[in-house]
This record gives sequence, structure tokens and C-alpha cells, in this order.
Amino acid sequence: MTASVFDSLIFGGLFTDDTVAAQFEDREQIRSMLRVEAALAIAEARVGLIPGEAAQHIDSVARTLDPDPSSLSAATTRDGVPVTALIDSLREAVGDSAADFVHWGATSQDIMDTSLVLRMREVTAILDQRLAGLVDTLLTLARRHAGTPMLGRTRSQGAVPTSFGLKAAGWAAPLQRHRTRLAELKPRVLAVQLGGAAGTRSVLGEHGMRVLDELARELTLACPVLPWHSHRDGMAELAGWLSLVTGSLAKLGQDIILLTQTGISEVRVGGGGSSTMPRKNNPVGAELLVALGRHNAVLLGEMHQAMIHDHERDGAAWNSEWLSLPQMAVSAGTAIARARVLIDGLTVDTQRMSDNLQALNGLACAEAALFALARHMPRREARQLVNTAVERTGADGGHLLDRLAALTDADVDWEALKHPSNQITTAITMLEQFLDPGAADS
Amino acid sequence: MTASVFDSLIFGGLFTDDTVAAQFEDREQIRSMLRVEAALAIAEARVGLIPGEAAQHIDSVARTLDPDPSSLSAATTRDGVPVTALIDSLREAVGDSAADFVHWGATSQDIMDTSLVLRMREVTAILDQRLAGLVDTLLTLARRHAGTPMLGRTRSQGAVPTSFGLKAAGWAAPLQRHRTRLAELKPRVLAVQLGGAAGTRSVLGEHGMRVLDELARELTLACPVLPWHSHRDGMAELAGWLSLVTGSLAKLGQDIILLTQTGISEVRVGGGGSSTMPRKNNPVGAELLVALGRHNAVLLGEMHQAMIHDHERDGAAWNSEWLSLPQMAVSAGTAIARARVLIDGLTVDTQRMSDNLQALNGLACAEAALFALARHMPRREARQLVNTAVERTGADGGHLLDRLAALTDADVDWEALKHPSNQITTAITMLEQFLDPGAADS
Amino acid sequence: MTASVFDSLIFGGLFTDDTVAAQFEDREQIRSMLRVEAALAIAEARVGLIPGEAAQHIDSVARTLDPDPSSLSAATTRDGVPVTALIDSLREAVGDSAADFVHWGATSQDIMDTSLVLRMREVTAILDQRLAGLVDTLLTLARRHAGTPMLGRTRSQGAVPTSFGLKAAGWAAPLQRHRTRLAELKPRVLAVQLGGAAGTRSVLGEHGMRVLDELARELTLACPVLPWHSHRDGMAELAGWLSLVTGSLAKLGQDIILLTQTGISEVRVGGGGSSTMPRKNNPVGAELLVALGRHNAVLLGEMHQAMIHDHERDGAAWNSEWLSLPQMAVSAGTAIARARVLIDGLTVDTQRMSDNLQALNGLACAEAALFALARHMPRREARQLVNTAVERTGADGGHLLDRLAALTDADVDWEALKHPSNQITTAITMLEQFLDPGAADS
Amino acid sequence: MTASVFDSLIFGGLFTDDTVAAQFEDREQIRSMLRVEAALAIAEARVGLIPGEAAQHIDSVARTLDPDPSSLSAATTRDGVPVTALIDSLREAVGDSAADFVHWGATSQDIMDTSLVLRMREVTAILDQRLAGLVDTLLTLARRHAGTPMLGRTRSQGAVPTSFGLKAAGWAAPLQRHRTRLAELKPRVLAVQLGGAAGTRSVLGEHGMRVLDELARELTLACPVLPWHSHRDGMAELAGWLSLVTGSLAKLGQDIILLTQTGISEVRVGGGGSSTMPRKNNPVGAELLVALGRHNAVLLGEMHQAMIHDHERDGAAWNSEWLSLPQMAVSAGTAIARARVLIDGLTVDTQRMSDNLQALNGLACAEAALFALARHMPRREARQLVNTAVERTGADGGHLLDRLAALTDADVDWEALKHPSNQITTAITMLEQFLDPGAADS
Repeated sequence: MTASVFDSLIFGGLFTDDTVAAQFEDREQIRSMLRVEAALAIAEARVGLIPGEAAQHIDSVARTLDPDPSSLSAATTRDGVPVTALIDSLREAVGDSAADFVHWGATSQDIMDTSLVLRMREVTAILDQRLAGLVDTLLTLARRHAGTPMLGRTRSQGAVPTSFGLKAAGWAAPLQRHRTRLAELKPRVLAVQLGGAAGTRSVLGEHGMRVLDELARELTLACPVLPWHSHRDGMAELAGWLSLVTGSLAKLGQDIILLTQTGISEVRVGGGGSSTMPRKNNPVGAELLVALGRHNAVLLGEMHQAMIHDHERDGAAWNSEWLSLPQMAVSAGTAIARARVLIDGLTVDTQRMSDNLQALNGLACAEAALFALARHMPRREARQLVNTAVERTGADGGHLLDRLAALTDADVDWEALKHPSNQITTAITMLEQFLDPGAADS
Repeated sequence: MTASVFDSLIFGGLFTDDTVAAQFEDREQIRSMLRVEAALAIAEARVGLIPGEAAQHIDSVARTLDPDPSSLSAATTRDGVPVTALIDSLREAVGDSAADFVHWGATSQDIMDTSLVLRMREVTAILDQRLAGLVDTLLTLARRHAGTPMLGRTRSQGAVPTSFGLKAAGWAAPLQRHRTRLAELKPRVLAVQLGGAAGTRSVLGEHGMRVLDELARELTLACPVLPWHSHRDGMAELAGWLSLVTGSLAKLGQDIILLTQTGISEVRVGGGGSSTMPRKNNPVGAELLVALGRHNAVLLGEMHQAMIHDHERDGAAWNSEWLSLPQMAVSAGTAIARARVLIDGLTVDTQRMSDNLQALNGLACAEAALFALARHMPRREARQLVNTAVERTGADGGHLLDRLAALTDADVDWEALKHPSNQITTAITMLEQFLDPGAADS
Repeated sequence: MTASVFDSLIFGGLFTDDTVAAQFEDREQIRSMLRVEAALAIAEARVGLIPGEAAQHIDSVARTLDPDPSSLSAATTRDGVPVTALIDSLREAVGDSAADFVHWGATSQDIMDTSLVLRMREVTAILDQRLAGLVDTLLTLARRHAGTPMLGRTRSQGAVPTSFGLKAAGWAAPLQRHRTRLAELKPRVLAVQLGGAAGTRSVLGEHGMRVLDELARELTLACPVLPWHSHRDGMAELAGWLSLVTGSLAKLGQDIILLTQTGISEVRVGGGGSSTMPRKNNPVGAELLVALGRHNAVLLGEMHQAMIHDHERDGAAWNSEWLSLPQMAVSAGTAIARARVLIDGLTVDTQRMSDNLQALNGLACAEAALFALARHMPRREARQLVNTAVERTGADGGHLLDRLAALTDADVDWEALKHPSNQITTAITMLEQFLDPGAADS
Repeated sequence: MTASVFDSLIFGGLFTDDTVAAQFEDREQIRSMLRVEAALAIAEARVGLIPGEAAQHIDSVARTLDPDPSSLSAATTRDGVPVTALIDSLREAVGDSAADFVHWGATSQDIMDTSLVLRMREVTAILDQRLAGLVDTLLTLARRHAGTPMLGRTRSQGAVPTSFGLKAAGWAAPLQRHRTRLAELKPRVLAVQLGGAAGTRSVLGEHGMRVLDELARELTLACPVLPWHSHRDGMAELAGWLSLVTGSLAKLGQDIILLTQTGISEVRVGGGGSSTMPRKNNPVGAELLVALGRHNAVLLGEMHQAMIHDHERDGAAWNSEWLSLPQMAVSAGTAIARARVLIDGLTVDTQRMSDNLQALNGLACAEAALFALARHMPRREARQLVNTAVERTGADGGHLLDRLAALTDADVDWEALKHPSNQITTAITMLEQFLDPGAADS
């Protein structure tokens, strides 16, 4: 039964990133919850709340216990959480001596939320590393094409020349910012949840804060004084980060789709056969980036709706997170991986880029011409000249700069201006400063 | 790997409806696509486009072919659709004689969209039947509690008495309307998609419209003249319907959560154990209804975003539908089934309902008192009296109507007014008219 | 203060449709609420609940009362609804004789919801009429360009030839369906809300149903037995319809943006100057259609979230509708009006359409060639030939069909196939059937 | 015409925060755009790109120019941006001498985006200051009620006792985190946008980076090397922050709504009259918080969709931001202000809190009793005893601890356990640590 393309045998290869998805796999969820139970016992033993031997025993059993996920299904359907059944299973495996000390003073949400955080730590580490790799790939592409002129396009219309390298650097810059954002949010978000029945750690008595500290140390997580079980800003912030990542990659995907269009054809991608049309080359990977970006943008709304969490626990709001956050994480994983493949497989047709620029008969230089002329005459006079030349080019063809040269004897080096590479010197300079910020200072 | 709780062995029992989810199961998707290929061949043979024997052969092979879903994965990842690989598999199974006539004149989207429609027909039939059953259950509940007084609550505050039966009928009425909506949208939405490479049915030549007719007859679907491959209003409308269903059930769920609250306690539900607190009875099923309602409300936005579909096919927009529609359908299936279980397992505490009304010291009768008095004096005078009585009740306790009786000698039967069942006569009448619209005429 | 571009003096001209927005103007809201109060009094007098003279007086005062909207602000901020203050104002204007009979048995929500429905009736009538006009415009365009060949584009890649007329008809077809949808939903959605304090019509006593009938007759609205104050499926359905409309128009807008792209340039639109680049022609109106489509897709989620309405009234959920529905209606109004202007101002460059087709060197005929050959040889052999020809065309240029002609002596009329108008005969036939469904039968 | 409640004279008092909304007022937008034009001229003069006198003149004129917003409407409707018309107006006011140097090398988006950032800086400063005030208010409330016992509620059911002070501190903690988040994002997001026609700063030639630096200095904004015009992660991040703020306040609002419920009645709020029911006290402000939280959660999706920004400028995606971001900012402003009023006007009924706890007949101490017993016997034995006592309490009434005392002679101080204040010692300790983190170390 796959209600979701992520879990389909047919579609999973397209939509799912196995490495990230592994963190949400049923057995991994169980493993991770057991790890929290084990760490809790260890922490409680350290502060003297439960016997050290019991904790050791719980820890060693929890490390190997591997219940069939299906065995938790009935209880999960009844209770709305799998923890009660999992604890029963753990207690049985632990045996009489230590069973009573399992899950001491914790509630289901403590286990599930902390388990989620452990797994999101893995997820974000994977995503961060991949982002680093993707940034490198994009910067290499940017360097290679620093001087490749292409048409800059605003509101679907040809504007002025830019450099393909600058465009590639533009794709990388937000990803670098996302890495900074992640570094900032991690200490806030990757935090132990331990509150007990209603967030007061009542059963832990005077040991509460010390158990929290030890648990956090054991799991290498942050430990804010107050539990966050019913304050979900951390999870919403994390979801926002995932959607920022997929949003930036969707923009990259959308740019590539537009560049592959028949008739534009400035880049080519791999893959993408058609069932009826020979030799069609669909930008499957780029489309996927757009779809994943839109999916996460939508699910992000669900995560923010889920911040409206009733009192000390709200089953409905909590369920909303389960429905959306894992999909968002997998989408981000897939998107980064796919973007890397897409960029690695990209064929850049610099000739076509140049042809598309030339096809404008110099109209892309209109702005440059205007400002070149404006050094020799009032700008409004220059604008008038350019407008006249634009009209003539539109009506009778020819190159805009030739038209302009015929209209004025202003001392402008029209031939130099004509050359695309001369029109992108600022793009190249800007790109160099971006790629090597220190160079200018030396 | 389960990125989605719907497909999890642990959580699937909670979130997934197996009957609906079966329509999105990998093998069922394949079966359904093969059925479309078979029907297409049959239709094309009927109009003489391909040989009848070939069509018969394709049909009989397609009925039994059962490829491993994983075998389609690699091609799906590459092409963005599983159809190319599926056709290869079908052609190989069909053998030389008829292979060429497989998929004649169709494109991948024709197969996938029509297959989706076939499965959504099953889904909507299941949902409709279940809605009918749920409506019956709710109307039975309404009949049983037609005369059960309870506090009506507006903006979280006690308002005036209502009847629990009327409340139950209120839950049923939108579901009845949803059944009407479904009947209206089906002829529009359950329609064959057949357009060929770019929606012109070019390869079908002069046979196009007849092939379409025959295909529609074979699959018992509607056949609008124009293909709808890039006009997704039908799918968006269907998604809207699914979300209307889950939205109405989420309202039911939310009402029940509120009624189960400790301190209100007017109804009790089954299930819902806690890992730490003995005898806690969480409204798990009701919470799930709310979560599923919010999930579909969010995913509906994705389906409407996907209406912005580029030109003759837009891979990104199409992918967006795959990411959202199946989840929406399963959510609706689960929600109806769960709501039925919830209502079947509902314990209505009529005593508690009555107690909660009485606890207001008659404040819930303030409006009734006002209008009773207004028969004997100007309303503003009546309002002044009531306000005074409300103040005294608030300050010193006692029953509002006793306070009022002491303030005026207007000829009002205060004791009759005091009785909750007298305060809900209009609710009972309204409910009777709703339950048996014809009765009043006889 | 304009938190919203709709209400800005600068941006309103771009984003707002004045005719639709007029229905949400402060004074119109007041007028409309007063109309409901008047109709309620009339209805109640007809059934003998209040004196006829009082009703007449209330009616005549309510028709002319025109309080300053600001005068309702303080009470609205305090009470969360403007009705209490409006009633005070109406009562004062009515004077002692009839003041008591104002708002008899109604609650604020009855007035506001019924007022909303009255105004949404105007809105939908306006939108329906405009849709009719836009459909006509599009069908005229479709007729004019029935035989205009252009490149069909799937997944951003050139596919096979289609007709621009068929494309225009494709834009019209969903709009026709939207008109049908509207006709179906109106009797459900344009319904009186009258429930009193908590939906029991308690104060109306035995007259409840008759007052409802009379009120509905007076306002020419439907009157379902049960009030719908806390069951918002009607409003959510209406919002869904608005978003279907803007979604279809956003698809039209997106197609036009893509067609105006520099380098594609198959259509031109009016307006759209740039502050820095002379003679730039931005597709402002088309972009707006996309933005409004996405806005409504998002706000639709809010309307579906608002279905989760607590008990007999939920202030938060109700507020959510106020925040979203008016914007959705205005967006739809603007979108239809803008789409009309866009289509009226569209310049179709049929030469450029033809050139773009030709520029593919016949690759757009690959499918047609394949099927033409398949009449003379097994399809897989034909596919092999086409693939070879596609490769050679890609490598060495020339026309695909010339390459094919050189590869086979199959009796295919290559020159006929080469002509685009021969490649769109099925498109033309399909379009004719759509434009004149009856013709084929005669 | 108010399509939006924010701009309505009737509803604006409820929904709008005038201080924040002032930043989006038409005249303020103009003022702010003129300020950017002035600063640009100054910056360009500093690096020698335009004459110093011209810059001085532009600066002084731009400071006083105050065009009628309506005068920009027609051009905005035509061009999709108000900048072209505004520049014409500025040039005319500046006169011949300097007109040519207005807007030198910039494009409309540079002006609008930088103007937006300037205003969002004001907005975030206002919000941050208000958050600080609200945090103080909440912490004061937390201190006052540190020892006020109340029922902790999980999944709508009474769980274990907590402290109202801890609950109030819980509301404050996310707001403190939001302030940290804001401090982190500001250097990223409050950044100059200056890219020229297509993001290459082509017209600025070799001066580009220095102009950027000077402009940033003049406006006290950050200046990333690359322009961000088509990379909207900053705006999406800012929107995410606004929605985090309103989400946390919506949780606060929802908690308060639930606490005000008739039958729970643990807190009372000011305001909220009803048109038909005397003395009803609706939690209008709290409902508004929920509605604004849901509104921003929805609009956040629009902002993330808008990250998918075509090439060097995408009019549709840009329009999407205009449609959503201002509403989000105003919603956040209103929400913080309203939350403050709500908390300031809150009446906490500590007696009722205590009564509601007592009404559970000690069931809220079940967990505490379990762990108290577990010091004297194996936990499962203790659990059995508690379960038995719970059953008897449910069946026959009485206090759970009395029932337990009758079942065991374990040496537990039942009377001490019975006292709510003894059940919240951990809550109090936790709260103290939160309020005064350093105290524990001294």
C-alpha cells in the first residue's frame, strides 16, 4: 500500500532519497526510540534515581532489541502512539529485575520527540554535507563559465547580457546561506525533550534538571530548561529550513527547465524519454526539483498550523507533524541529490547562448548604449536616440548599435560595445569578488 | 523506507485505510494502466485502426501480465514516468505479432491519467458508500438524542440549550451535501484522457473521436471532446471534494475532542492509553480526524497550484498531483472509516450534559427569559431585568429564573421555562423536519 | 493604511476589480447587513411574530440608514463583530415604537452570514457573466486560429504540431465547466443563515421554519432546514470554485508568459514598461494571472482549515474566512477582467509560430513520420528508421523527412507530411467538434 | 474598497496594527522608495559616478517630494511597478540639471526591494521591542503564579497538576527564541538590493561594488556581493519568522480560549459582547490570535512558492510576495499587541483552577501515587494497586488517595500527596531555574 510516491517501488527511485528516508524507516524509528529509553535509564542511574545495574541492563537489551514493526501496529492504532507497546516489549525483554525502571518518569512524547530530534540530527548532517558538495559543484561551474555571455532574462523578456557563471554562482549563494542558517538553528532545535506526563518532570523530583543534563550529554543534544513538547517553534523552524533548501533548488530547477526549452536550448540535461516521441529529452530531474519545492512550501503551512498546540499536549497537532515533516526531510534529501546529478549532467551550449544573444540584433545592448551615450550627452537625449534606433531595428532589422552609430557622431566605440564579453565585465568582476572575497584586499 | 505515515507498518494502522490505499498500491497501478492499454487496443480495433486479432491478444495478455513493480523503477527514475518501461514489458509479453499495436497513438499521460481516473472511480464509490453508512449512523444517533438537552456553545462560551440530536444531525447534513456534490462532479471528472503526443490525437487521424467514444464505452467513463491533460480543473475539483469531506469530519472530530475534555466530559470514546498515566482515555480517533482534515486542507493548495500547468504538458505540475492526490484520497477513506468507529463507540453521558446545563444556574435561559418577558413588556425593559438578574446570579448564586421571578410579577411560567426540555422544543421540531421532511405536509 | 495591495491607491488598479471589490466595501457591507435586518422584520411580521407596522418601519429606516463605517469600529474591536453596534444604531434610528423588534430572534452571525451570501450572489453573478464573455472571446480566437499551426510543447520540449486555435479552445473549456459548476453549487451555497443564539431558532418558537421560508423568499435565497452557521462546507465550496477559476486563468497566463519569451516570441501583449530598459514589453497582465491563481490556491487552504469550526460558533475559524474569502473573490474578479484585456490585446505572430516549427528541421514530424511508415512496415522497424534519421538530422542538419526519404523507399508522401497544416488536421477536426458539437450529426 | 479586513474602517481596529501598517501605507512606500533613490544618488556621487551637486539636489528634492499615490496608479497598472512613474515625477521635480542622474544604473526592483527592506527593518524593530515587552509581561505573570496549581491537560484529558506560572513561562520561552532568531537573520535579510537591469550592475561599471558599499552605508544595511533580486530566501526566511511569531501567539490564544470555556472557566478575558445573549463574554482577542496564526501559516506557503523565481526577474513570483508579506507583517504586529492586551486584561481564577483539580477526586495524583508506591514495592505491583483504586474511585467516588490508603499499608504520606502544591514542586523548581538561570550556581 503506498499512499505516497516516496514509498512506492515504482516511483520511489524518482522521489525518494534512500539515505534520508532510512531515518524514517520503521525499524530505525524503533531503534532510535529504544536508544532514548536506554539513555534515559543511564542518565537516571547517574543521578541515583534508579539502580545502576538496572540501567546497564536496560541499555544492553535496548541496543539489541529488534521487534517486528508490525507488532506495534495494533497498539499504535489504539493509543495513537507506538511507545506504550514498545515499552511493554522492552520491559518483557529486560525481565523482572529491571523492568520497573524502564521509561521511568517519561511520557510517550518525550521518547518520540527526542527520537525525532536524534534522527533529524542525522538528516541535517547529511543535508549539510550534500549542500557543501553541491555548492562546490556550482562554484566550479561558475568558475568555468565566468566569461560565458548569455542573455539575462527579466519578466520572461531578454534584458541585458549576463554571464552563465554568475547565474551558477547565484544558485550557490542561497545554499551557502542555508548552511549558515542550519548552523544557527541547530543548538535551538536539536534539543532533548523530557517533560514527563505534563511537562513538569514531576516523577523525577529534585533530580529533574540533572537527569535532563545527563540525558542531553548522553545523546549529545542541547537541554533547554523548559520542555518544548507543546511549543513547536523548533520543529516549525526546522521545517522552514527544509523548505528554504527545496525552494532554492526549485528555482535552480525552474531556470534549467526554461533554458532547456526547445527554441531556447541553452543547456541540455540527461535522461527523460517519451513513450511516443523518439529522441525527446525531458528535463525530468529539473521538474522534480520544482515539484519538491512546491510540495515543501505547502507542507510548511501544515507545520506552522501545528504550532497551535492545545495545552500540554495536542494529539491532532502532533499528528500533523508526523504527516508532514518526514516527507519534507526526504524531499530535501532528494532535491539536493537530484540537483547534483542535474548539474553534473548539464551540457552547456555556449554557442547557443551566444546565438540567442546575437539574435536580438543588439537590443540587449540598448541599456549599455544608453549609458555609453549618456557620457556624451544628457541622458534623456541619449534615451531618445536609443528609442529611435530600437524602433528602426524592430522595423527594418540590422544591429541596434549600427543603427545608433548612424544616428550620432558621439565618440563611442560601438564595435567594442558590440562584443558580448565586453558587456559582461561587471558580471565577471562581481563573480570574482564572490568566488574569492579576499583577493580584492591583497 | 516510509517517508509517509500512511505506508508505515507501525503507523499505517492508524493513518491508512487499506481499501482506499489498495487503489494506489504499486501492483494495482500497473494493473490499471494495463487495463487502459488493453481497452485502447480494443477501441482501436473496433474502429478499424488496428487489427482485431492484435487487440484481442493485447487484451488477453494485459489482463494477466503482472510485472514486478521494482522492474519499472529504473526507467521511471530516468523518464519520469513508468509507462515507457511498462509498454516495453507489455510488448515483449505480447510478442511480435501484436507488439506494434500496443499503445498505438497514445502518450504516457493518456495511460496514467485514465488509469488514475479508473482508480478514483473506485475510490469515490467506496467513499460514497461509506458516507451513506456514516450518515445513517449519525441520523440514528440524532433520532436517539432528539430530546437530549445540552449546552449550546458559541465562541467557547455557554450560549443557550440545544439538543445533542440536533448536533448529530448537524454533523450529518454536510455529508449528505457531499454526496450530492459527488454525484454532480462525477460526469465531469471521471472522463477518459486521450490526446496523444500533444493533445491533438494526431496519430489517430480521422478515427480520433470514435476511438475516444469506444474507449470511454469500454471503460464506462465520460468522453469530453477536448483532452484535459493540461487542464486539471477536474483533478482539482476532485481534490476539493476530498478535502470538503475531511473538513466536515474534522469539525465532527473537533467537537468530540471538546466534549471529551476533562471537566466537560459529556461524551466518552474508546481506546487511547497513555504510557505513564493509568486510565487515561485519549480521543485518538477524533484527533486523527482533525489532523487528516488539516492535512487535506494543505494538500488541496498543492492541487490548485498544479492547475498552473505549462503548455501541453508540465512535468513539475503533474508530479505535484502525484505527491498529493493519493494521500488526500487515503486520508478521506481513513477519516470516514474512523468517524464511523468513533460514533459507534461513543458513550453519551446525558446526565453530564444535563448537569453542565444546570451548573450555569439558569444563565443559559437568559435569552429565553428575555423573550418570555418581552411578551409582557418592551424588550429593552425586559433586557434590563434580565441583566439585573444575571448580575445577582453571578454575585450571589441561585437560579437566574428565581432571581427574575423575584424581580417582576410578569405572568411567566418560570418553572416550565426552567426545564431544559422546554428550552429545546424548537431544536426538536427543526430536527424532526430535517429527519422527515415530508411529515409536515401530511 | 493598506496592508493589502488590493486596497492600495498605488497597486489597487493592478490587483483589484472595483466591481467585485464594491461588494466588500465598508458601506456596502453595512447596507447589506441592514437589508437582512429589514427582511427579517418583514418575514417575522408575515408570520405574525412581530407587528406589521414595526416591520414596515424597520424596513423603511434600514433602507436609508447610512452610518459612518468608522462609527462601528470600536464596538467591532471589542465584540469581534460589527452587528451589536449596527443594531444599536438601527434601533436608535427606528425609535421607540419598533426598536424592540429589530433583530428579533437573530444572532450576529445570522446577519453577517446572510449578508455575505447576498453579496456573494452579486459577485458570482458578475463573475459568471464575465466568464461567459471571456469564453466567447476565447472561442472567437479559437475559430480565427483553428488552422494556425504551432509547436505543441510537452515538458518544455517541442513535441508535435498543434493549432493555436485548439490551444485557445483549451483555455475556454475549463471556464465553461466552471459555469456549470457554479450553476450546481448556487442552490446549495446561496442559502439563508438563520439560527439564533446557538442554531436552534429558540426565540422564534413554533414560527421558526416559516420565518426562515419568508426570509428566504424575501431575499430570494435557498433555505435548508438546518442552519449552516457552524458547518462551512458551502463557503469552502464557493472558495474552491473561486480558486478553480483563478487556477484556470493562471494556466492561461502562464502559457502566454511562455509564448512571449524572447526567443519564442509567438505572441505579444500590451503594456509593461521598464524603468531602465527601453522598449521592454513585460507580460504584466499574464504574470498577474499567475500570481492571483497562486494566491487563491493558498487562501483556499485557509478556507478549508476554517471548516474545523468549534461547536455552535468558532470566532477564530470565522475570522479566518473574513481574512481570506473577500480577497479570493476580488482576485477572481480581477483575473477574469485581466484575462479578457490580455486576450483582446494579444498579437498572434503566426509567422513566428510557423518559423519556430520549421526551426526544428522536421523533428516535430517525427511521430507523424513514424506512424506513416508504420503503415508500410512493422512499427519497430519504422521507429528504427526514424531514430536513425533523427540522429543524422541532429548531427548534420537538413530536414528530418528528407533524411527519412533517403533511408527508405516506403511509399510515403513526404512533401505532404512536411506541410504543417497537414500535421494538424486532427487538431482542426477536434476543434470543430468542440466549437459546434451538433454539426457532426447533421 | 476593502478586499481586506486589514484596510476596512469597520474591521481594521480589530485586525490591524496601525504602527506596523503605517510602513505599508501608500505614502510611506513612496517616501521609502524616494529615500532609496536619494541614497543611490549620494552613493554614486561619493564614488564619482555622478556629479556631487546633482546628488545633493536629488537628495533634497526626494526628501520633500510627496506625490499623490493615485497619480502612480495608471502607470503601475500598465507597467506592473510604480517605479517608472515615480522616477518621472522625481525627475520633473528635480529639473533639468540633475534629472538625468536620477535612478542611475538601477532598475525598478532595486528600488522596490531595498525600500521593502528599509520598511521591514522598522517593522522588525517594532516587533522585537514589543516581543520584549510581552515577554516581560508573561514572565511577571509566571512569577506571580509560580505556585498556582492547575490541571495539566494532555490530549484534552486531565493529566497531572502543573503550575499556571509554568504555563505562562511556556508561552514566553518561544518568544525569547524568536528574538534570538531575529537577531540572527537580520544581517542576512536586511540587505541592499542593487543589481541593475539583470543583476550585473552593468551600468555601474568598475564602480559597482563601491556604489553598493556606499549605498549600504548610507542606508545602514548589509551588502552581500551578489544581488538577491531573484533569490528570495531572505524574504522567505523573514516571512517564516513572522509566522513563527504568530504561531506561538496563536498557541497562547488557543490555550486561553480553552481556559475560558464555560465549565472550565479558569481565566476570564475582557470585551466580547453578544448581539442576543446578555452578559456573554467572548474571548475575541484570543480568537484573533488563532486566526492570525493560521493566516500567516497559510501565507507563508505563498512566500515559499515565490522562491521559485524565473531567471533574473519573475513578475508573477514577485507579485506573490506583494500579496502576502505585508499582511503577514501586519498580522504579526496585531498579534503581539493583542496578546499584550489579552494578558494585561486576564483574570486568573485560582480558586477555579484548584476546584477543577479537586473535582478529579485525586485522579490527577494517580501518577504521583504510582511513583510514591514504587518506592515501596515493584512498580508493576504499584500500578496494579493504583488501577484498582482508580476503578473504585470511578465507580463509587471518594478521593483516589483515600482509596489507595485503604488498599495498602505502604508508608506513604497520603495527606501530603493530596495537597496540590506538593504535586507541583518540580514545576516550581523548573520555573525558578528558567526565570533566574544563574541562581542555582550561587
